[in-house]
Amino acid sequence: MQVFDRHEVLDRKEIENLQAIRLKNTVHQATASTFYRNSLARASVKVPDINSHEDIARLPFTTKEDLREQYPFGFLAMPKEKMVRLHASSGTTGSPTVILHTQNDLNVWADLVARSMHCAGVRSSDVFQNMSGYGLFTGGLGIHYGAERLGCLTIPAGVGNSKRQIKMLGDYKVSVAHIIPSYALHLGSVFDDQGVDPRSMHLRIMLIGAEPHSEEIRSRIQEIYGVRAYNSYGLSEMNGPGVAFECEYQTGMHLWEDAYLAEIIDPETLEPVPQGQTGELVLTTLTREGMPILRYRTRDLTRFIPGECPCGRSHRRIDRITGRSDDMIVIKGVNIYPMQVEKILMSIPEVGQNYIIQLERQGHMDQMRVKVEIRDEFFVEDMRRLQQIQNKIAGLLREEILISPKIDLVEHNTLPQSQGKATRVVDKREEGK
Amino acid sequence: MQVFDRHEVLDRKEIENLQAIRLKNTVHQATASTFYRNSLARASVKVPDINSHEDIARLPFTTKEDLREQYPFGFLAMPKEKMVRLHASSGTTGSPTVILHTQNDLNVWADLVARSMHCAGVRSSDVFQNMSGYGLFTGGLGIHYGAERLGCLTIPAGVGNSKRQIKMLGDYKVSVAHIIPSYALHLGSVFDDQGVDPRSMHLRIMLIGAEPHSEEIRSRIQEIYGVRAYNSYGLSEMNGPGVAFECEYQTGMHLWEDAYLAEIIDPETLEPVPQGQTGELVLTTLTREGMPILRYRTRDLTRFIPGECPCGRSHRRIDRITGRSDDMIVIKGVNIYPMQVEKILMSIPEVGQNYIIQLERQGHMDQMRVKVEIRDEFFVEDMRRLQQIQNKIAGLLREEILISPKIDLVEHNTLPQSQGKATRVVDKREEGK
Ligand SMILES: [Zn+2]
Ligand SMILES: [Zn+2]
Repeated sequence: MQVFDRHEVLDRKEIENLQAIRLKNTVHQATASTFYRNSLARASVKVPDINSHEDIARLPFTTKEDLREQYPFGFLAMPKEKMVRLHASSGTTGSPTVILHTQNDLNVWADLVARSMHCAGVRSSDVFQNMSGYGLFTGGLGIHYGAERLGCLTIPAGVGNSKRQIKMLGDYKVSVAHIIPSYALHLGSVFDDQGVDPRSMHLRIMLIGAEPHSEEIRSRIQEIYGVRAYNSYGLSEMNGPGVAFECEYQTGMHLWEDAYLAEIIDPETLEPVPQGQTGELVLTTLTREGMPILRYRTRDLTRFIPGECPCGRSHRRIDRITGRSDDMIVIKGVNIYPMQVEKILMSIPEVGQNYIIQLERQGHMDQMRVKVEIRDEFFVEDMRRLQQIQNKIAGLLREEILISPKIDLVEHNTLPQSQGKATRVVDKREEGK
Repeated sequence: MQVFDRHEVLDRKEIENLQAIRLKNTVHQATASTFYRNSLARASVKVPDINSHEDIARLPFTTKEDLREQYPFGFLAMPKEKMVRLHASSGTTGSPTVILHTQNDLNVWADLVARSMHCAGVRSSDVFQNMSGYGLFTGGLGIHYGAERLGCLTIPAGVGNSKRQIKMLGDYKVSVAHIIPSYALHLGSVFDDQGVDPRSMHLRIMLIGAEPHSEEIRSRIQEIYGVRAYNSYGLSEMNGPGVAFECEYQTGMHLWEDAYLAEIIDPETLEPVPQGQTGELVLTTLTREGMPILRYRTRDLTRFIPGECPCGRSHRRIDRITGRSDDMIVIKGVNIYPMQVEKILMSIPEVGQNYIIQLERQGHMDQMRVKVEIRDEFFVEDMRRLQQIQNKIAGLLREEILISPKIDLVEHNTLPQSQGKATRVVDKREEGK
């Protein structure tokens, strides 16, 4: 059973001292890999140069392309025989990204996930249903090991089969669930179809992560299930879940600074953004021995939340991910992030649980079409009423994103429902060219 | 890293003494559960009565129906809060069977799987691809934890996506794979379709289990991949994989008698069969604390193999599972086990990698139809040649099972391919009634 971890309440100076020591160790460890031996030599960085957390700025960045080019084992800082776990991205295009772990790496990771879940109020007496894909995807095994470490009764439910998920939630009196936000909304409508009230379950906490989502989605999930929903952040290059997690105050995610050194940079200039401003999150592993990664460009956009958290944890909080530096849509010369669209849609009561942004080309003009599911009670035969809803959505979106997308209203459960991360943007502009 | 376990070479007397102590403990522990408190009282068995491994005969049997009736928690011998893992059968009909584990139970299970893999020649330096379904099914996580315990580089590949499985086998220089036998044959034909020789991989060992299969299937797998294939036995009620495993001599599966007390009974009389004869395997957990199970009727048919194994391990060996006491087919008054059909089919060189036994009714007559995939090189336009193959199969089957099934020859890859356990028998006799 996990208790409150003394590392959670180190003061700023202690964290920075620990980071300095661990950063030096990590750079030393990294030089054992083919990739970093070369890359650190090119950057003329030597281990004795690293004496403060601020010396991170001397190190070169690492990108997803670097990981791909070194596929599969060029980042290993220890012999392959010392590794006990391999995770890989699905790699639909090009080489997959491969991350390997020693037994010690897995232990540290499980501890971080256990700490994260504890931080969100999960306790060893909880019954925990893990609705994440197991296998090569890190969300499943990553959370699973942490939950067991914490001592929860862990149900490795995996993804899909919504009726069975609902049966398990009820039969086993599940109190905590880990679920992808878009799937949580979908599952809510399966509850409806079955005539079961999601609030009649024993759920008290939902851990939602693995895809960016708006505050409005969180509110909907809390409303549907009658739970507190906690935002989680992780990526497989940094192990997976357990990088940053919300505490009971839900005021941003504590990023575990004893395990990760975080920077927020301007993706163009690569310089740090001013304190509190949004930029690209860059992370360095501080405890990984098998495959350390320095200054990894996550492409995720966030900011540090200024000030102290009332919970007393000293680890700085990052804001929810507002998008990816590479998922910006440029349409009619305007920059738009999909999260801006979601935020508006999910604040409109008539809007159901699913939507898709479709980019099209008409002649030489780009155009955005937003397909929106409408709640059953509003999807009536009254064309005038539907027209009003359409106008309302179009108006609110125009205020936020400055262009006027086409709005298609569709019925509940008619848009494609993914069991993993939702596909929110479909770009059809290059079709038929 | 796992070393040769001293428990593997206990002499018979030591094993029996250990079993006596652990059986007494297990009965004591079991009385803490609702189910066994009642069932042991009804059988008038008290803990002080259990002083030898032979006292197992005093205990009542436990069946799958008992587990279902106590769904979900009636077998728990410790508070639910002490449990950290839940596994469940898919439960397509009726309640699922649920098995729960404490952290200590999981540790013991992982040790048994690590011992089993080591026994089959797997070492910590191996790269291990686990092609089992993860999640609620015990084959995935069960083998996974054991492989990590042993120190292998473990790839949680999961089921399906054959092209990706092949890419991983090659890219990561996988030396050991865990795979369902019917899927191993199917994957072999995907290799063929891709023009890749399975023998060009780095594979040296395949662990095959989770479905009964014949010696002929093992030979085919060894031939296709150029590996040694080791038979494994387990069932979720007894944790999952790690109950019995073959050693390098491939002369039956050592059943770990320090963890399971095994009996082989006549399924009709419920009395022990004479030494060396085939009957139903009955198992009692000897180390499980959260949910002990006494005299579980596995329905699996096997026998103890007489004599000593050349490897020096003292744990008795069971023969490959030849069927289930409830999967016997009765047709035209003759008793037939599907494994008899498989054995014959797989010994015929023209026969491909998949087959289905279909039971039909014509008027008042039952009839067996066997659909058999034929290797491409034999599936020619020459009707006379195909007729010869058909006659050969029919003749060999008649000799073994004493009736004459209809034989349908079909092309390679045309029968349904399951990614989990293969469905070998389809009973259409009750259709249209
Ligand atoms: Zn906090
Ligand atoms: Zn042996």
